[in-house]
Amino acid sequence: MSLLIVGSTALDSIKTPKAENPRLLGGSASHAAVAASFFTPVKLIGVVGEDFPKKYLALYRRHKIDLSGLQILPGKTFHWSGEYEVNMNNRRTLLTELGVFEKFSPHLPDAHKASPFVLLANIAPALQHHVLDQMSRPKFVAADTMDLWLNIALEDLLRLLPRLDCFVLNDSEAHQLTKEDNIFSAMKKIHKLGPKYVIIKKGSHGSILSSPRGHFICPAYPLHTVCDPTGAGDSFVGGMMGYLAATRGTIDNNFRRAMIYGSVVASFCCEGFGLDRTTRIKRTDIEKRVKELEKLTKF
Amino acid sequence: MSLLIVGSTALDSIKTPKAENPRLLGGSASHAAVAASFFTPVKLIGVVGEDFPKKYLALYRRHKIDLSGLQILPGKTFHWSGEYEVNMNNRRTLLTELGVFEKFSPHLPDAHKASPFVLLANIAPALQHHVLDQMSRPKFVAADTMDLWLNIALEDLLRLLPRLDCFVLNDSEAHQLTKEDNIFSAMKKIHKLGPKYVIIKKGSHGSILSSPRGHFICPAYPLHTVCDPTGAGDSFVGGMMGYLAATRGTIDNNFRRAMIYGSVVASFCCEGFGLDRTTRIKRTDIEKRVKELEKLTKF
Repeated sequence: MSLLIVGSTALDSIKTPKAENPRLLGGSASHAAVAASFFTPVKLIGVVGEDFPKKYLALYRRHKIDLSGLQILPGKTFHWSGEYEVNMNNRRTLLTELGVFEKFSPHLPDAHKASPFVLLANIAPALQHHVLDQMSRPKFVAADTMDLWLNIALEDLLRLLPRLDCFVLNDSEAHQLTKEDNIFSAMKKIHKLGPKYVIIKKGSHGSILSSPRGHFICPAYPLHTVCDPTGAGDSFVGGMMGYLAATRGTIDNNFRRAMIYGSVVASFCCEGFGLDRTTRIKRTDIEKRVKELEKLTKF
Repeated sequence: MSLLIVGSTALDSIKTPKAENPRLLGGSASHAAVAASFFTPVKLIGVVGEDFPKKYLALYRRHKIDLSGLQILPGKTFHWSGEYEVNMNNRRTLLTELGVFEKFSPHLPDAHKASPFVLLANIAPALQHHVLDQMSRPKFVAADTMDLWLNIALEDLLRLLPRLDCFVLNDSEAHQLTKEDNIFSAMKKIHKLGPKYVIIKKGSHGSILSSPRGHFICPAYPLHTVCDPTGAGDSFVGGMMGYLAATRGTIDNNFRRAMIYGSVVASFCCEGFGLDRTTRIKRTDIEKRVKELEKLTKF
């Protein structure tokens, strides 16, 4: 089944201790859409400026991403610039130019309104609401977020949570939202705010699911070198939702493997700058790492 | 088969945000020995002062720990006092009184010298050497360490590594030892220093094994409340070595399950002050959590 993804579509200038790469294709929706495209047809909702490189439109198209919901507006594409520390765990934002994103109002083509699977990738909660408002009853809705929205749009986010089936956030955001130090206590509190499935991401330590079938400890695929972790979280949730949308059977039955697939796509994301590595893999590369993860966790 | 354990035997005064407990039974050897005792007969090598409470000797005996290698010397028992921060991840040492530990020279009774399994729990590397020097050819030797020895006894530790089958350390110690940020690169370097099995502990994120059979991602048992993590690492390695010593078949075949058992015993350790909780469980409680971990990680 098809998957609708809304989120940011951006140009990322990324600095790591080893290299500097200006104006790569980035944004939560770009990473999530490419990740999901390995599994299911994706409909992208986003906005870019007139400066958006044609090669990136071609990249989306190569991944068979439906661009009829991508607005191209006069002005500049959202530009983010950030720098990673040596250990690649901490990053700081150097610059944020919103450009056309400032006035972005997601508009769904009629054909998109009945999409059964919806991923509200990281973007202002008001825009996530706005997408849901335009949809007929989707089968499964997941949303990601970031610390910024907890700081400046908490009310919108709290209103969003009851509208979700699945909420994905990282450990520090979970702490910020619930004031709980313990990850399992935090998930309990988040369930009470609405979503039936709660996933807490822990970077290279993997992620944890709390669901009607209990908890699942999802490993990260072990990487010997991390080139650029930007977009890893978006790739994780994109891959996961893509797998869920594509796979027959109940959500409950497929959820754990969906997270494993997400985890594997995220591992490829970390191995290159921006989407460099992810756009070069094939489904068979993903399957190989899924099998490896099976071996790595079996006891 | 029997397991010889050397390490510290101490009285721990532990402060957490919720409570304060003076002079609990502690020390790396105490935690490791009790953890291992659920699986195999344990021979303890250590030293205590004349002030060592009789109830703690009785506790060791209840766990059928052989105390013929425990020296009781004139003077005071090693006393450590520490305080945990709210999130229970960071702790600071308030006080260290070495007492009889200052002049400790481990002496192995003849009956101990042929123990097939040896755990050199956290203690000065010179003392770990001294124990190995007294042994005939043990089948499997594992050692734990701490940042202190990396700082003040690195040479002794580097001389120890080629004498080990298995070396266990935590992520920050691995970074300190190898200067590698990546956990897998760090393990590669540590293999070159000697041990065939390298385990890096990551606290509540579980642990990673690097071995001749490849890597294993070992989960931590999920805890909703952590009372006192002191001794969790010692319990992990104690439980692991106890299971290895007790279980038929090759070390390679048993290693992953051994880590899982260690992980489970460590989870009980965290649920009480000192050894309070660990000493109240039965083997069936351990088996129950091992089964739960199977469910929590299956996909």
